[in-house]
Amino acid sequence: MKSIITISRQYGSGGREIGKKLAEKLGVPYYDNKIISLAAKESGFAEAAFYNAENKATSSFLYSIAMGMNVYGNQDIGFAHLSLDDQIYIAQSNVIRKVAKEGPCVIVGRCADYVLKEFDNVVNVFIWADLDYRRNRAINMYNLPADKADDEINKYDKRRANYYNYHATGKWGRAENYHLSLRSDYIGIDNSVDCIVKYIEDGERSNRQPDELT
Amino acid sequence: MKSIITISRQYGSGGREIGKKLAEKLGVPYYDNKIISLAAKESGFAEAAFYNAENKATSSFLYSIAMGMNVYGNQDIGFAHLSLDDQIYIAQSNVIRKVAKEGPCVIVGRCADYVLKEFDNVVNVFIWADLDYRRNRAINMYNLPADKADDEINKYDKRRANYYNYHATGKWGRAENYHLSLRSDYIGIDNSVDCIVKYIEDGERSNRQPDELT
Repeated sequence: MKSIITISRQYGSGGREIGKKLAEKLGVPYYDNKIISLAAKESGFAEAAFYNAENKATSSFLYSIAMGMNVYGNQDIGFAHLSLDDQIYIAQSNVIRKVAKEGPCVIVGRCADYVLKEFDNVVNVFIWADLDYRRNRAINMYNLPADKADDEINKYDKRRANYYNYHATGKWGRAENYHLSLRSDYIGIDNSVDCIVKYIEDGERSNRQPDELT
Repeated sequence: MKSIITISRQYGSGGREIGKKLAEKLGVPYYDNKIISLAAKESGFAEAAFYNAENKATSSFLYSIAMGMNVYGNQDIGFAHLSLDDQIYIAQSNVIRKVAKEGPCVIVGRCADYVLKEFDNVVNVFIWADLDYRRNRAINMYNLPADKADDEINKYDKRRANYYNYHATGKWGRAENYHLSLRSDYIGIDNSVDCIVKYIEDGERSNRQPDELT
């Protein structure tokens, strides 16, 4: 398995669980929002600290600009125009590209499909599910109050769509952004994992160069 | 296999070929635009002829209204307001519901996923593919001139999207309209067929009632 797999998902669809199980099954690293955010924060701090040392910038505003500049690795771009959100996006995208260069892995969320659009060994997956299923999952697994579950689901999905549509060129949830889109509740989590594995294996076999064939 | 499978597809993605091979593999009837249009025309004429005989309507305008009325099976609705396109849509939808009631089958195009939204044994599939692949297919299989292929592909897809978005409540090509969406060129036609078969089998097994389990 040589592929990097990105997973986008509706809230409560089991996309993160599918991603984790997929990574376990394939024996590759797993990354999600939390891991990527943490890594971006750490690398951002490290880079900003380095830049501060070089430039003796000490105010938090300059620090913020410096962080942006270092993330790009280019001091000539007008980073003062970048919002904090944009700076975070850039830092997270750098983390995503870095882990993707290290080898096969599963990355959940963070527009990873768009961030890695120049990579030729990426398979993008979208997971969605029926609202009843997502509501149950939200209540039972994420402990949302039953009377607020629908609002929360809606809010999360809107946030994900906005995040994607702001940063990427395509639209979140459009089939043509993803090699494979699945309704997970219809076949269950484990079958969804198997379906993705089969798609990737078929794809790698189909796209293998003649000199790679054994 | 108890499922009715609907296939929506981008032009040149191989969706129709996948549908045909899928029907062969499952041993169920196959229906596409041409077959449905023909059946709708035949049933429309037959019904209109019956209605004409009953009402002595002979002008083509009355004939057209009559056809619409019979399609609905209700003389009280103001069919004069229905465009010919809407009348054709209704007639075709009736054909789709009729064949779906007869048993498992594969239906390509004509918003069949939306028309059959009340049926509980339907699996909806969307097929898309990379533009290069679709261009090659359009030129080599549908004999489009190379310099016009992109325009034609674009025109066909716009027409399909407009047709869907006009009649259905969802948006054409959105992952959440379809149980399974596939990029066909990445794994090839035959693997796409197998992927759909596996999804359906997994789904039927997962959704089987306890008393159906052997």
